[in-house]
Amino acid sequence: MNAIDALVVSLAKLPGIGKKSASRLAYHILENDRSYAQALARQLDALHDAIRRCSLCGSWTERDPCPICSDPARDSTLICVVARPLDIRVIEESREFRGRFHVLGGLIAPLDGVGPDDLALNTLMQRVQSNNVREVIIALNPTVEGDTTALYLQKILQNTGAEITRLASGLPVGGDLEYTDRLTLARSFRGRVKM
Amino acid sequence: MNAIDALVVSLAKLPGIGKKSASRLAYHILENDRSYAQALARQLDALHDAIRRCSLCGSWTERDPCPICSDPARDSTLICVVARPLDIRVIEESREFRGRFHVLGGLIAPLDGVGPDDLALNTLMQRVQSNNVREVIIALNPTVEGDTTALYLQKILQNTGAEITRLASGLPVGGDLEYTDRLTLARSFRGRVKM
Repeated sequence: MNAIDALVVSLAKLPGIGKKSASRLAYHILENDRSYAQALARQLDALHDAIRRCSLCGSWTERDPCPICSDPARDSTLICVVARPLDIRVIEESREFRGRFHVLGGLIAPLDGVGPDDLALNTLMQRVQSNNVREVIIALNPTVEGDTTALYLQKILQNTGAEITRLASGLPVGGDLEYTDRLTLARSFRGRVKM
Repeated sequence: MNAIDALVVSLAKLPGIGKKSASRLAYHILENDRSYAQALARQLDALHDAIRRCSLCGSWTERDPCPICSDPARDSTLICVVARPLDIRVIEESREFRGRFHVLGGLIAPLDGVGPDDLALNTLMQRVQSNNVREVIIALNPTVEGDTTALYLQKILQNTGAEITRLASGLPVGGDLEYTDRLTLARSFRGRVKM
């Protein structure tokens, strides 16, 4: 296998990148500056050495604890629970939340063999109990697995004294009622807010 | 900028990869095997050293001449003219064509400042005249630039004795060779028309 084909095969293993996209990317990289390919190579090579888990929230970070967990300006009595580190990035971009995060590392999915023991629940309990946490915001996808996990969290956290809330689910901003699916519409009715 | 952010910025420079996709890819790479990231890094690092231009057809190759130009089983009296090396990959996958290729390196596009002098036309003329070429198949996108370049090729090749043909429409007008499915492409080869 030549060097282009080898790169195409590797790129095609990435999520959402098919064989055609992988070819397009490989030729783009080849036909552009060598310095770009080599910068990308260096970044990939160093990635796993530079990045580790934050021992508090479980997110990816260069220094432990991570910048969010060690930021004194952020409210440590407010914890937002997410499934994956990538979710933190999305939430941070909304600039809506100024508390701390906790990464579960997945969602309860019995069919995939993922149970509560596979998630970072003990560390969550410890953080909620020892930091005088006043609210735990559950920011999990509104899917069967997300709903199941949210209910489980509510059950194990209900005696900690913290309020347990979950992100509102409903019509996306700028969306169109006509193109909204039945389940989303039903949920936005149930969660309707007084004006 | 931390190691993840740096990787996201680099990935977002790739065509068709926005900021969200770049984040998704970066976290996927981080959360997978280190060996995958490092294999990809090695491939990117070595790419420009391993690959050069074929001195005959102008495509990318590890050895010069490229495997297609040096394959004695391929008909050297049949030349398929393409704009870019990536187009060769797409055409090879259709398994319809058993001649040789010639890469122009672009299309005539006056508005972008690309004229005939910027394309590999002299080497094409030499190949057509010295190899007893019986047919030149023009496999350029059916766009304004592709049509312009095809007409120009017809003009400069008309006294060489070779028949000049162009891929049949069957390619959607305004479309792109790169995204054409294998069967449509094969059909457009078989239905190519004399210019």
